[in-house]
Amino acid sequence: MKLKKFIDKKTAWLATTDSSASIVISSRVRLARNLDKIPFPSRANEAQQTESFSRISGAVRGVNHLKGAEILNLSDYDGVDRQFLMERHLISHEHAGGGGVRGLVIGDRELISIMINEEDHIRIQGMQAGIQLKQVWDMIREIDDMLGKNLPYAFSYDIGYLTACPTNTGTGLRASILVHLPVLVMTEEIDEVLRALGKIGIVARGLYGEGTRVMGDLFQISNQTTLGHSEETIIENLESVCRRIVNREIKSRKNLFSENKTGLIDTVYRAFGTLENARRITFQETMELISKIKLGIYLGLKIDARVGVLNELMIVTQPAHIQESMGEILPAPERDIARADLIRKRITGSA
Amino acid sequence: MKLKKFIDKKTAWLATTDSSASIVISSRVRLARNLDKIPFPSRANEAQQTESFSRISGAVRGVNHLKGAEILNLSDYDGVDRQFLMERHLISHEHAGGGGVRGLVIGDRELISIMINEEDHIRIQGMQAGIQLKQVWDMIREIDDMLGKNLPYAFSYDIGYLTACPTNTGTGLRASILVHLPVLVMTEEIDEVLRALGKIGIVARGLYGEGTRVMGDLFQISNQTTLGHSEETIIENLESVCRRIVNREIKSRKNLFSENKTGLIDTVYRAFGTLENARRITFQETMELISKIKLGIYLGLKIDARVGVLNELMIVTQPAHIQESMGEILPAPERDIARADLIRKRITGSA
Repeated sequence: MKLKKFIDKKTAWLATTDSSASIVISSRVRLARNLDKIPFPSRANEAQQTESFSRISGAVRGVNHLKGAEILNLSDYDGVDRQFLMERHLISHEHAGGGGVRGLVIGDRELISIMINEEDHIRIQGMQAGIQLKQVWDMIREIDDMLGKNLPYAFSYDIGYLTACPTNTGTGLRASILVHLPVLVMTEEIDEVLRALGKIGIVARGLYGEGTRVMGDLFQISNQTTLGHSEETIIENLESVCRRIVNREIKSRKNLFSENKTGLIDTVYRAFGTLENARRITFQETMELISKIKLGIYLGLKIDARVGVLNELMIVTQPAHIQESMGEILPAPERDIARADLIRKRITGSA
Repeated sequence: MKLKKFIDKKTAWLATTDSSASIVISSRVRLARNLDKIPFPSRANEAQQTESFSRISGAVRGVNHLKGAEILNLSDYDGVDRQFLMERHLISHEHAGGGGVRGLVIGDRELISIMINEEDHIRIQGMQAGIQLKQVWDMIREIDDMLGKNLPYAFSYDIGYLTACPTNTGTGLRASILVHLPVLVMTEEIDEVLRALGKIGIVARGLYGEGTRVMGDLFQISNQTTLGHSEETIIENLESVCRRIVNREIKSRKNLFSENKTGLIDTVYRAFGTLENARRITFQETMELISKIKLGIYLGLKIDARVGVLNELMIVTQPAHIQESMGEILPAPERDIARADLIRKRITGSA
């Protein structure tokens, strides 16, 4: 366990404290790239994995955007550290759990990260707070161009960039937007929204991406396929879909607030009372309560907690963050106590 | 609705703020008496009911303990007022709901009350905070003696005082102790305790006596029959049984606190957070939360609420109290909002 130093670094993609933007948490773009003439990581032997790791991390040094980036060899880090990195959305669940030679590049303020030898040799990820896919894409494209000058990418003029999984082939791009939809969940309208998304090739995933559960009413909305569309089309399409979802959430918030104002206010304040007073609490419940409190702040209720603190809590109350912070491996019941302590201290501002 | 003036009067039997006595709320003794040669109230016609009301209220004026007592003719009071009187434990559920000519005498600080034309012509009730059955019995006996000098009681030298229901015949005495048993409820030991009581002719009733539900883990422990025992025996027996129940609750509190300290503390603080923050709340939930908070205070937890305030809340948050306080008949959802407002104001000390 050696990542404690990261805990109080701000995750800049979560920096929004502007309540009007509080429905959209962040925008994320990732590109999948592979080196020519080296097997995909799952089929590469250790020497080949080491070669790709070495060549990619060497190339990273030449990228302007990544001056001062940290390059981690994941084999130096234990399970808690890897989970910690996943909790900060720097690596995927698969990357955290996988074997072999794997790496991670962490850029300035955690807005850029590059996974080395995940499913593909290279996964470049860019993030920003709010709806900013185009800006993120511009940044990612520059990094991709610079890396591509020094690394021979696996590329076919017929179908585009080659990737380990055919769903990524073509542009290798996945764009996603993290949105907070508590009222669509409360009213169960979310089911209809998700069905409609499926029909147009858009999926909603949980907090940590593919195969993870939704917590705190946070949904990662992303394109499902990349083949046959330009990067710009994918991004414009996703932004437009997300704006519609956000508008629906806004409309439902207004409706619910006018139809059941007392019920909603009661729910919000009870959530705050529980978060502020609990002496043991799971991460799941923490996220549910924060979701309701943030909704209350959006609705203009006077609540003694700042959005910035609540956003930080969504990161630092995760299981590996609690353990890094305490400096020891803790079983779940003890984490629940440490988490409740941490929450009270942060909310009352004494830590 | 005209009993608002009573709301801020202290119910002296609930005055205990000494945490060592917090398991026993109060002691109550009631005597059933009937006038000779007038049918029991349920069989009396209006003229006969009026006669008993008039003779009894006249006799009350001559009793030292009842100088300055208020005498109410219940037909002057609407349903909310009668429920209000029941909520203050001054009259029974039956007396509140029944027809005919009925009266109520309210003595100093509500420690004595006399129901006129309930099931019997006269029901004298005395209450005190804590375990004080003997003191209450001494007071009740004096009142009974003085009333008996001016009123011819229905009495048989073979079986004692005659009453409408045979379970009261003999002494006409029922003694009860109101106890707070949250941990016996949590651990479900209460089921065993109640079964054991049944075998020795002792019953546990709900908050408002016979046929009412238990709320806030408050049990009225009382003798089931009165025939064949002296008043002193009944009272000594009940006090001794209650002391044993209280000791068991104390022991269970210690055990639970040592076995699951974190869980118990978490439960207590969450209850406080909810009570302090809810924007609508039922009386049932209010009682459940207060029960847990009082347990926390007993266990020495630092909680920002005084036992005295919590005890008052148990009275003033009842449905009819809320309505008397607001000066209007309110449907349950609006009472729930008014109740939550009242609780927040009292807890923060701004009202």
